[in-house]
Amino acid sequence: MASTFETKATIATFGGKLLKLSHKSNATQTPMDVNLYLPPASNDRKVPVLIFLSGLTCTPNNCSEKGFFHAAASKAGLAVLYPDTSPRGADLPGDKDSYDFGEGAGFYINATAEPWKKHYHMETYVTQELPEAVFGAFGDKLDRARVSITGHSMGGHGALTLYLKNPGMYRSVSALAPICNPSQCPWGEKAFGGYFGQDDKSLWAGSDATELVRAKLKSGEELPCLIDVGTGDNFYNQKQLLPENFEKAVKETGVKGVTVRYQPDYDHSYFFISSFAEDHVQHAAKYLL
Amino acid sequence: MASTFETKATIATFGGKLLKLSHKSNATQTPMDVNLYLPPASNDRKVPVLIFLSGLTCTPNNCSEKGFFHAAASKAGLAVLYPDTSPRGADLPGDKDSYDFGEGAGFYINATAEPWKKHYHMETYVTQELPEAVFGAFGDKLDRARVSITGHSMGGHGALTLYLKNPGMYRSVSALAPICNPSQCPWGEKAFGGYFGQDDKSLWAGSDATELVRAKLKSGEELPCLIDVGTGDNFYNQKQLLPENFEKAVKETGVKGVTVRYQPDYDHSYFFISSFAEDHVQHAAKYLL
Repeated sequence: MASTFETKATIATFGGKLLKLSHKSNATQTPMDVNLYLPPASNDRKVPVLIFLSGLTCTPNNCSEKGFFHAAASKAGLAVLYPDTSPRGADLPGDKDSYDFGEGAGFYINATAEPWKKHYHMETYVTQELPEAVFGAFGDKLDRARVSITGHSMGGHGALTLYLKNPGMYRSVSALAPICNPSQCPWGEKAFGGYFGQDDKSLWAGSDATELVRAKLKSGEELPCLIDVGTGDNFYNQKQLLPENFEKAVKETGVKGVTVRYQPDYDHSYFFISSFAEDHVQHAAKYLL
Repeated sequence: MASTFETKATIATFGGKLLKLSHKSNATQTPMDVNLYLPPASNDRKVPVLIFLSGLTCTPNNCSEKGFFHAAASKAGLAVLYPDTSPRGADLPGDKDSYDFGEGAGFYINATAEPWKKHYHMETYVTQELPEAVFGAFGDKLDRARVSITGHSMGGHGALTLYLKNPGMYRSVSALAPICNPSQCPWGEKAFGGYFGQDDKSLWAGSDATELVRAKLKSGEELPCLIDVGTGDNFYNQKQLLPENFEKAVKETGVKGVTVRYQPDYDHSYFFISSFAEDHVQHAAKYLL
């Protein structure tokens, strides 16, 4: 297999293999780790891919270890691709000072403000460079025509916005406890203020799922989207997630196909993610299989 | 609910609740953490309990987060109880010097050698004090007449030996990558040598699953036991586990009901445990439901 990836580990799990990979990224100008779960081999048929975008502070390993997407992905016959959450090792001033900005907090956007704009190109990385590399290296196993996207928290914001910004790229989208309206919450204000600056608010709106629904979709249009939020989620209760704003935009625009579920008592953790991982795999599988 | 436990967290997961508990133990003369997963409430019927004994270095949290037992336990309607792996905070000389002795490495035995014999009474703790406390505090939810036991690595040794030493206490036993013949492997020689000393080898045999099969069971007797071992497990390949010795004792004694499976490529990690957690829950459920 020709690959731009270094394979750091191959781990048997749920009948398939979890590959811990690393490669050099042009988009971020740094090495990037990525995990890829391959379901059990099924004859010679290529399998579709579900991309999972992780939340603040995570690496590709957190959800690989604690999200339990593999149980359902193994049964459904989906691969799961886990990108990292930011460039690492760029060594910019302040990039390790807080959990919600800089390393581990790339927000899946292309930064335009100094000093972030050289490395923090996670949007280009996730939508272009990483798929190019993965389907190049694993083209015999993975079907590049069948890809869906999901994610948690900051990664839920990433999944929703990358889906809405790239019509046709993904067959479906889902999110667990997503940041739905970053322009209006403290996490998003800090991230967008830092990566985009304060001057051009069109950049903010262009990477805000709630704004994108209003800007990009028309009445009657289908958005194949499942969202779960726990009512015991402290970040939901602190109004970092604002799923109600997203629901309002969906309703007022007249978009179809969106399901938002409020799960009683669940928190923001992997105990929540893992509990609904099967539902999110099955949501994607409806559109991928 | 009258409880000797302090509840440090209550976490919604897989339709039930994971309780992080702490209590003072007389057996170990230390505080002990314990996790308890309660499946979704099912009318007023008490649910059976599966005890999971963890391996070297683990706390009750490792398997709670990465073992994936809750998915299957939720469906089957079983509670899962996770004791800690040793006393903590006893502050004995050398108790934090190595990963395979002292803290995190209690081996589910009652130490008889100095300085361990004051605190390292994990056998009494797991078989007597903890069930007494748990069924006392949660007697309205848990059925003390229906308990099974399982575990991983050192915890697999614990599950097998506590089952064999206490006829009638558990309805079934299973183990993932268990230490099957500790008297014959480096981990066990270090642990038994330290906790029991070198003089009385009957203490070693009395806590060795392979020896216990020969000593306690008769030809034709049933041992409701499932064991999984990964062939890519470096500790298996280093002969720390020795499941073949256990199988030989089972065969030579004429014991029925034991299944030992060698799972191709799987390692010793939670990626292995989680992959077969459902099978081990279902094995217990056969005897508990």
